[in-house]
Amino acid sequence: MPHRVLNFNPGPSALPLPVLEHAQKELLDFKGTGMSVMEHSHRGKEYEATHNEAIALLRELLGIGDNYHVLFLQGGARGQFAMIPMNLLAKNQHADYVLTGAWSEGAQKEAEKIGAVNVAATTKVDGVYRRVPKPSELHLSSEARYVHITSNNTIFGTQFHTFPETGSVPLVADMSSDIVSRELDVSKFGVIYAGAQKNMGPAGVTVVIIRKDLVESGRTDIPEIFQYAPHAKANSLLNTPPTFSIYMVCQVLRWLKKEGGLASIGKVNQEKASMLYRAIAEHQGFYRCDVEDDSRSIMNVVFNLPTEALEKQFVTEATQAGMIGLKGHRSVGGIRASIYNAVTLSDVTTLVEFMGAFEKRHR
Amino acid sequence: MPHRVLNFNPGPSALPLPVLEHAQKELLDFKGTGMSVMEHSHRGKEYEATHNEAIALLRELLGIGDNYHVLFLQGGARGQFAMIPMNLLAKNQHADYVLTGAWSEGAQKEAEKIGAVNVAATTKVDGVYRRVPKPSELHLSSEARYVHITSNNTIFGTQFHTFPETGSVPLVADMSSDIVSRELDVSKFGVIYAGAQKNMGPAGVTVVIIRKDLVESGRTDIPEIFQYAPHAKANSLLNTPPTFSIYMVCQVLRWLKKEGGLASIGKVNQEKASMLYRAIAEHQGFYRCDVEDDSRSIMNVVFNLPTEALEKQFVTEATQAGMIGLKGHRSVGGIRASIYNAVTLSDVTTLVEFMGAFEKRHR
Repeated sequence: MPHRVLNFNPGPSALPLPVLEHAQKELLDFKGTGMSVMEHSHRGKEYEATHNEAIALLRELLGIGDNYHVLFLQGGARGQFAMIPMNLLAKNQHADYVLTGAWSEGAQKEAEKIGAVNVAATTKVDGVYRRVPKPSELHLSSEARYVHITSNNTIFGTQFHTFPETGSVPLVADMSSDIVSRELDVSKFGVIYAGAQKNMGPAGVTVVIIRKDLVESGRTDIPEIFQYAPHAKANSLLNTPPTFSIYMVCQVLRWLKKEGGLASIGKVNQEKASMLYRAIAEHQGFYRCDVEDDSRSIMNVVFNLPTEALEKQFVTEATQAGMIGLKGHRSVGGIRASIYNAVTLSDVTTLVEFMGAFEKRHR
Repeated sequence: MPHRVLNFNPGPSALPLPVLEHAQKELLDFKGTGMSVMEHSHRGKEYEATHNEAIALLRELLGIGDNYHVLFLQGGARGQFAMIPMNLLAKNQHADYVLTGAWSEGAQKEAEKIGAVNVAATTKVDGVYRRVPKPSELHLSSEARYVHITSNNTIFGTQFHTFPETGSVPLVADMSSDIVSRELDVSKFGVIYAGAQKNMGPAGVTVVIIRKDLVESGRTDIPEIFQYAPHAKANSLLNTPPTFSIYMVCQVLRWLKKEGGLASIGKVNQEKASMLYRAIAEHQGFYRCDVEDDSRSIMNVVFNLPTEALEKQFVTEATQAGMIGLKGHRSVGGIRASIYNAVTLSDVTTLVEFMGAFEKRHR
């Protein structure tokens, strides 16, 4: 058995052990071809089978309709912050942005380079976000080209548990940190995009699920590589894709299917999060979660201890106990446990036990 | 020993076996951290050491001056086809493009979305390119924002062996298929860019070596993610980089240094190419290389057989003999042996012997 820690990294993050073991086993000889998957041509039938299997698995797991393209692109969510408005927004048009954290602010900033942005809502108070907005708080415009949200906010530990109704205006969601973590009605969205490096695979590939009519009506006066249409037409083989990252996504999705799909993993993720929020509540006065109840993320559980010194000590002792990645984002401090799909119920149980013991030692 | 074929793929392509073995060994436990390198945070000191080592090795191997940034980006060479003009060219300005194949045509097409393009030279005759232009054939403009070339043309098997003198106009080169394959005077260039997947690593990471003054004077009215300056300022950690691909690049560069660096690998690459061109010449009338002598690539050796049927048979029999990737690009047909850094002298010797035997059987 290799030495392995419990990995609560916010992303890149834990990968399922069986996936890593499988990748290791065939790293020099993919499917008996005498080559690593990294050495295969992206135009060869062996790689293409994996590429297409990853797309098919994503379609199956998320129940994606035929009226959507599933694309594998590069550049991360930040690339999509720019590509979305470049494709869907013109200089004299506007889009609605719902601000719930640093990532949605980043998306807004890029869109402002392209067209006009209407802030449909922001939950920022004194520089921090403790919740996502209620439907009644959204000032949506029927003329907007789209409405942009961040479904889960890794830094502030908030998450949309129901999505805004946007009528005929396409809803665009950055789901980098909660895609394939729970069941989802894709048909509510115009575009869903996500970097793979949290729930789906290693860094280096970005999934874009986009309604075909939005692809077809996209702008063509921008560079071809930043248009969705040529990528869709070429089945994400317009240029050399990040083949190894896509191979890894395929393995993770296979694992996810074997584990029972999104209904099943969604239950496990809910249970993991509930255990942590319960532990925080049970040790009230020592641990504290400032996120409002309705907005609490099941992916990133953020909390504080009585002092910064104790938070530092918590991270140090956790590391000694074989648990890493628990330090909160540098912009907000505190503790953050990122509990994506590959983090097991047993990992979280260990963390909860540690929290109890730590409180006893330091209260 | 794992089953391994001789890999003449045009890219993604062969990786050095010791590099793959090392990656395999530590795939579940990177440097004793109890995590795969894929599971590490890009903000953690363990990953960052690898990231910085890859940059330092590239600087050392290529002798890159302090007046250049070395960036790891995503999106491949095609991403740079767009980013170069987006950063360096405005609507009312023009750039010179030297056309030597499909990739330079692709770069030209993207630049035309941004500003004006002057074709400084093209060697296209009857739809094909058999050579790169001579210095005297270049119609360079002193007002151009930059001059763009493709240093090696994978499809047509041509390569620049001396580079155009462009005076004070920055020379921009797509070196996707010959970077770190031979010694190079980087100071002659304003920008060098390259997808890693031929000589440097797996697909998914793009190296950009860019003079600092060009970064500083770049346009700021485009999305931040497509500006060079923020990437340079953040040491290519503006957003999550393709960590595993960069880790692999680091391993390949370590291997390259151990093999004696660019002077040494350049000699080996020259010898590999010479063996193949000699073999073609020795079997004249059966094998034929239409590329002009001065322009022949040391990376992609393209040749033809008397008939298309024989070319097909050649590929079939080569595959049976354990040599793959020899089919010419679908747009031009024929045979292509891509002999990047990780293809050994012994691999090429085996191919040359096979060529002799095949000629005897089929002439």
